[in-house]
Amino acid sequence: MTTRTDGRADDELRPISITRGFTDHPAGSVLVEFGRTRVMCTASVEEGVPRWRRGSGLGWLTAEYAMLPSSTHTRSGRESVRGKVGGRTHEISRLVGRALRACIDLSALGENTIAIDCDVLQADGGTRTASITGAYVALADAITYLDAAGRLADPQPLSCGIAAVSVGVVDGRVRLDLPYEEDSRAEVDMNVVATDVGTLVEVQGTGEGATFARSTLDAMLDSATAGCEQLFAIQREALAAPYPGTLPQPAAPAKKKAFGN
Amino acid sequence: MTTRTDGRADDELRPISITRGFTDHPAGSVLVEFGRTRVMCTASVEEGVPRWRRGSGLGWLTAEYAMLPSSTHTRSGRESVRGKVGGRTHEISRLVGRALRACIDLSALGENTIAIDCDVLQADGGTRTASITGAYVALADAITYLDAAGRLADPQPLSCGIAAVSVGVVDGRVRLDLPYEEDSRAEVDMNVVATDVGTLVEVQGTGEGATFARSTLDAMLDSATAGCEQLFAIQREALAAPYPGTLPQPAAPAKKKAFGN
Amino acid sequence: MTTRTDGRADDELRPISITRGFTDHPAGSVLVEFGRTRVMCTASVEEGVPRWRRGSGLGWLTAEYAMLPSSTHTRSGRESVRGKVGGRTHEISRLVGRALRACIDLSALGENTIAIDCDVLQADGGTRTASITGAYVALADAITYLDAAGRLADPQPLSCGIAAVSVGVVDGRVRLDLPYEEDSRAEVDMNVVATDVGTLVEVQGTGEGATFARSTLDAMLDSATAGCEQLFAIQREALAAPYPGTLPQPAAPAKKKAFGN
Amino acid sequence: MTTRTDGRADDELRPISITRGFTDHPAGSVLVEFGRTRVMCTASVEEGVPRWRRGSGLGWLTAEYAMLPSSTHTRSGRESVRGKVGGRTHEISRLVGRALRACIDLSALGENTIAIDCDVLQADGGTRTASITGAYVALADAITYLDAAGRLADPQPLSCGIAAVSVGVVDGRVRLDLPYEEDSRAEVDMNVVATDVGTLVEVQGTGEGATFARSTLDAMLDSATAGCEQLFAIQREALAAPYPGTLPQPAAPAKKKAFGN
Amino acid sequence: MTTRTDGRADDELRPISITRGFTDHPAGSVLVEFGRTRVMCTASVEEGVPRWRRGSGLGWLTAEYAMLPSSTHTRSGRESVRGKVGGRTHEISRLVGRALRACIDLSALGENTIAIDCDVLQADGGTRTASITGAYVALADAITYLDAAGRLADPQPLSCGIAAVSVGVVDGRVRLDLPYEEDSRAEVDMNVVATDVGTLVEVQGTGEGATFARSTLDAMLDSATAGCEQLFAIQREALAAPYPGTLPQPAAPAKKKAFGN
Amino acid sequence: MTTRTDGRADDELRPISITRGFTDHPAGSVLVEFGRTRVMCTASVEEGVPRWRRGSGLGWLTAEYAMLPSSTHTRSGRESVRGKVGGRTHEISRLVGRALRACIDLSALGENTIAIDCDVLQADGGTRTASITGAYVALADAITYLDAAGRLADPQPLSCGIAAVSVGVVDGRVRLDLPYEEDSRAEVDMNVVATDVGTLVEVQGTGEGATFARSTLDAMLDSATAGCEQLFAIQREALAAPYPGTLPQPAAPAKKKAFGN
Repeated sequence: MTTRTDGRADDELRPISITRGFTDHPAGSVLVEFGRTRVMCTASVEEGVPRWRRGSGLGWLTAEYAMLPSSTHTRSGRESVRGKVGGRTHEISRLVGRALRACIDLSALGENTIAIDCDVLQADGGTRTASITGAYVALADAITYLDAAGRLADPQPLSCGIAAVSVGVVDGRVRLDLPYEEDSRAEVDMNVVATDVGTLVEVQGTGEGATFARSTLDAMLDSATAGCEQLFAIQREALAAPYPGTLPQPAAPAKKKAFGN
Repeated sequence: MTTRTDGRADDELRPISITRGFTDHPAGSVLVEFGRTRVMCTASVEEGVPRWRRGSGLGWLTAEYAMLPSSTHTRSGRESVRGKVGGRTHEISRLVGRALRACIDLSALGENTIAIDCDVLQADGGTRTASITGAYVALADAITYLDAAGRLADPQPLSCGIAAVSVGVVDGRVRLDLPYEEDSRAEVDMNVVATDVGTLVEVQGTGEGATFARSTLDAMLDSATAGCEQLFAIQREALAAPYPGTLPQPAAPAKKKAFGN
Repeated sequence: MTTRTDGRADDELRPISITRGFTDHPAGSVLVEFGRTRVMCTASVEEGVPRWRRGSGLGWLTAEYAMLPSSTHTRSGRESVRGKVGGRTHEISRLVGRALRACIDLSALGENTIAIDCDVLQADGGTRTASITGAYVALADAITYLDAAGRLADPQPLSCGIAAVSVGVVDGRVRLDLPYEEDSRAEVDMNVVATDVGTLVEVQGTGEGATFARSTLDAMLDSATAGCEQLFAIQREALAAPYPGTLPQPAAPAKKKAFGN
Repeated sequence: MTTRTDGRADDELRPISITRGFTDHPAGSVLVEFGRTRVMCTASVEEGVPRWRRGSGLGWLTAEYAMLPSSTHTRSGRESVRGKVGGRTHEISRLVGRALRACIDLSALGENTIAIDCDVLQADGGTRTASITGAYVALADAITYLDAAGRLADPQPLSCGIAAVSVGVVDGRVRLDLPYEEDSRAEVDMNVVATDVGTLVEVQGTGEGATFARSTLDAMLDSATAGCEQLFAIQREALAAPYPGTLPQPAAPAKKKAFGN
Repeated sequence: MTTRTDGRADDELRPISITRGFTDHPAGSVLVEFGRTRVMCTASVEEGVPRWRRGSGLGWLTAEYAMLPSSTHTRSGRESVRGKVGGRTHEISRLVGRALRACIDLSALGENTIAIDCDVLQADGGTRTASITGAYVALADAITYLDAAGRLADPQPLSCGIAAVSVGVVDGRVRLDLPYEEDSRAEVDMNVVATDVGTLVEVQGTGEGATFARSTLDAMLDSATAGCEQLFAIQREALAAPYPGTLPQPAAPAKKKAFGN
Repeated sequence: MTTRTDGRADDELRPISITRGFTDHPAGSVLVEFGRTRVMCTASVEEGVPRWRRGSGLGWLTAEYAMLPSSTHTRSGRESVRGKVGGRTHEISRLVGRALRACIDLSALGENTIAIDCDVLQADGGTRTASITGAYVALADAITYLDAAGRLADPQPLSCGIAAVSVGVVDGRVRLDLPYEEDSRAEVDMNVVATDVGTLVEVQGTGEGATFARSTLDAMLDSATAGCEQLFAIQREALAAPYPGTLPQPAAPAKKKAFGN
């Protein structure tokens, strides 16, 4: 097949949507959509840092990625019920954290942690790249919130923008931003995380039961880099508007009781 | 304080919203909102039944409830990362399942399972009662879907509607549908699950460091029953419209690969 | 069937027995029997409180419920071997703890914890209500012990007595204190925790594949309340006698070695 | 100190008590007491054998040992809550199973399993040896029950009696059947499992921060062997009486519901 | 610093050693050394395939990577004791499996599994790339063993050779095959898996708190590709010799007993 | 069969080999071989002691034993993947720790811990006794290292040598140092841990589906004791040479990154 099922050009992104202030409690809360892939990305501020970092004076940024059981074509088991986090989940969580740490000066936070949560509400391919792209916006809002609260040593700790996109070889052609239907039969699959200052943060290319030539790698990088440029524009536009949501309030004095209900 | 922080009358529900077809993959998918409490409730159809029920010819309905880490005022730890499901989560999952099994003739399903997932996107009190109320609508859509697919032995396996609401004693007054701010300081807390044919499914009343008179129990039941009547009307209205979402498609032939991404 | 298998009247308790000082190490140790249901209930005093309560100056009371594998008709798997506590176990543990916290002024303990253990030696229905009824007596003995040791800020921290009983609809009739044979086929099942000053602590009524009218709820509450009155009398009689067991001794200086053997 | 705290001679057992029919559901149920050490030992019959033994035509015998949290001087954590079985528990469970498998012809059971449970109600040293001694009696009762039900290929599958006792070096003297007070400061600690036909099943001797001469090992074996002879007599006397308990009944037809309550 | 601590040129591999027949039981067993990094790589043949692949007629290849606790500079905790496999371990296990599946025609195995184990005896950087390079040789030996046993549908199921090497930017220079001392301070870190027919299998490049230019990526790929060419020559030389170890024997008829001891 | 498969006399050890300095990072690192059984035994020094020992001024010694998955005739599952340590592993880990604590004055270490790791690379019977014998040598090297670093309060904290050997009854004959082929069909199986000053540390004898006479126990002890004497000579010879390995260096200043790779 030489045309894509959804009619896009090979180098065309799916419709991208970024909704800020999607929920009220976190310092940053974004719903990001890459076509039918929908991820809720939040940035919460937590006091303190992990044990190995205490006393350093530096902050930390950590990330957790997860798919809701009903987000996939066929319902998948809940990891909390199975009692362990699967390898793929771990791997993506680590990727999201590394990607966002590349753009932030953690010393500005003092010994505080920004916890990024990327929860996939609906999966249709590219959930990890959508997560990174949306989480950057949630992070930017959290930084604004912290700065307004006078909690930053440096008001501009973000040195660049971060976005990510998938690219792959499907039907023998290099295609950008694969939906599940293409991803599930791609010969090569690559995820690229880039900065808006022209550099790369992470490149992960994998032959799926196939191998690939160096020239194919180059073509995939070209396509992904161009896709990221479009994503940076969308992020900037989204962030240009005033914060649409409710700013998080200090928690009410806790009474020993399960939260929320 | 004799008036409620949000200005409601003691016997008044928060604004209730039910959005069907919220996501595409499950047979039923609902976003339910009780004020700022927002829960995504889905009903997925799975082949087969748990081991203990095999060979019975009967179907099963199971439910899992969970809160997203960022759904609470202060971010809470992810149960999959801790490696176990907490007691409160277990308890609510069991409650949701029991509540919905009260309205369905499981023999109509054959040996298939309906898996209900209630994932709390934003918590502001009453998440378990919102979950039951929303999950009933997702269940109704899943039943319609199964019937259209010719997979039901009895086209009307739902014998009644199910809704639930919380009620409590706050500031010495019986109040309906408590938000977190009231729930966290309630002296008595009750959850009532009722049917639209005038009966009760579940009544759980708890003194929170206090005890309560039988007459208080009666007043709470009166209030909750009236609240459920309003919820039944809202459910009926929501279900009267044609299905707004994309009907789930059969999964593409699986290739061994992590789903969705 | 209009008469009960064991010949009791519908509103009649099974033979109830409370044996204090059943074992020697805990501050309170009770064997409670509701017919053939037998539960060992102990109250142990532990220094310190959970992390979230430290620095409050207040004590805590926690409870754990479990069934021995051989306590049931058919041997059930050991939760320690499965590596997790089941939902039902969690739910009952939480119920027992809440019920007993309703009667105690935790500030009298200082930052110490009373750990209640309810281990079911033989199960024949009503294990959770027997647990609460027996645990209250173990708690009362532990309080006496603490007071004698001069470790209470207030010598009378118990504000009331606590007892619990099950009630249900079986064969269309409201019946009190269900054994397994009735419980397993009950249409409605309710557990009521009450105080000896005429108030309620917890009411949990559940339709088991059925629903129930408000009038049925009222009849069940009447029966359960009357049953609790009888249990209070039995508790008072049991506590009127001098402590029959060995008072716990301070532990011998520990050597690093597995205890007990 | 040259005399024992409890006044016994060095080669004297504590008072031993064996109560058959202690609970009703298992095929064999024994309360065994070695002084203040009290263990509930049950033998339950389960259909089938572990996977690795299927198709062999042979039965199996397995054992699980556990201490109730309140059984020790200082309350110990519950292994089900910690989510794993500790090394000591595992080790003793394996010992009890091996010890009892030494006396039984497993081919007589067909592909069925006898599950031994040893739950320590009160620990005062020697819990593993009391467990083996009591479990043998529960096993003998289960065998009688199976034979009466016509479920044995060979009506006498037990080839000998099994008992066990601890012995150690305390205060420089070889002493039999150590209570916790002696066990916790013993220099050498040994557990001996023997048969009533004059042979040994298991010998486990351990220097506790000390080492021991071969002659000490010999003296400990002499003492333990003599102790076991007395235990065999007590077992025989206990088993000579008719079964005092209720014989287990076939389980009522199960309804899907948590057992017992 | 413009020279490397160990005196190597920037594009020079550490001394590489491949020892076949390192242990006797697996079908392939290799000790691979990249300088002081030492990994034991084995390929075991197991009957059957994972559940999701049953009935396909196809085989499977899976891999597990782990570090011995004492393999690192500072002893690290044992994952079996912690009760879960860490994210890094999961990620590398998945990488090794994907890499080797790129070279094998799994249909030749029938429904059997090759289990690759990579256990790091000593870690000094590059353990994942050494693992892949060594595991390929163990896999080749296992294939020879299976072919000699007449268990392959196709005697040549390996379509190419596989090797991997790390490369990074240290002190501003692109350097090949980083030891821990360089890896721990690298600005960019990349792992490349390649085939001996000139294609790529996997490319994973990560900025470590830094980002990198596309030209740097190109330079790293050049260096890694050249490094892999040398590794292919070493693999071929190692495989040219006759098998030096003991060929695995069929297991003795099992008696139920812990293996090996 | 009256001669052994490998041609040894009944009281003859397999060829024993002890390689010191087997890996570089731990303070002591030994490869011990009893015939084809090969175990890597390391002794690592860790700051601090377990919580229950803090403030005592005393050190601690702990041990962990594990088998690599590919070490057995048939590959065995990885305990980290299963998420729990099996009973046999726990039991042997505890045995190794107890055995080595018998020879060391822990007060000399200050509040530091020596962590012994015994990882079985190849299993052919006697892995636990080989582990103890090899770990003693690793411990001796770690002590020398600590003394050289001026970190011991007493330069000679080891009071004796420790070795261990298995013995059993096979084909009706008492035989020393059983390989898997004999161990798997032994009627009686015993492990003896002894000191080089003529005393015993641990004696564990088990009838494997059989029982044994006291005279057999004596014969097994005679054989094991003689075997240990030979092992002490081999240990002494191994330790007489200068340390052949690289002494561990202080770890480089850590950067937050996974170790080793």
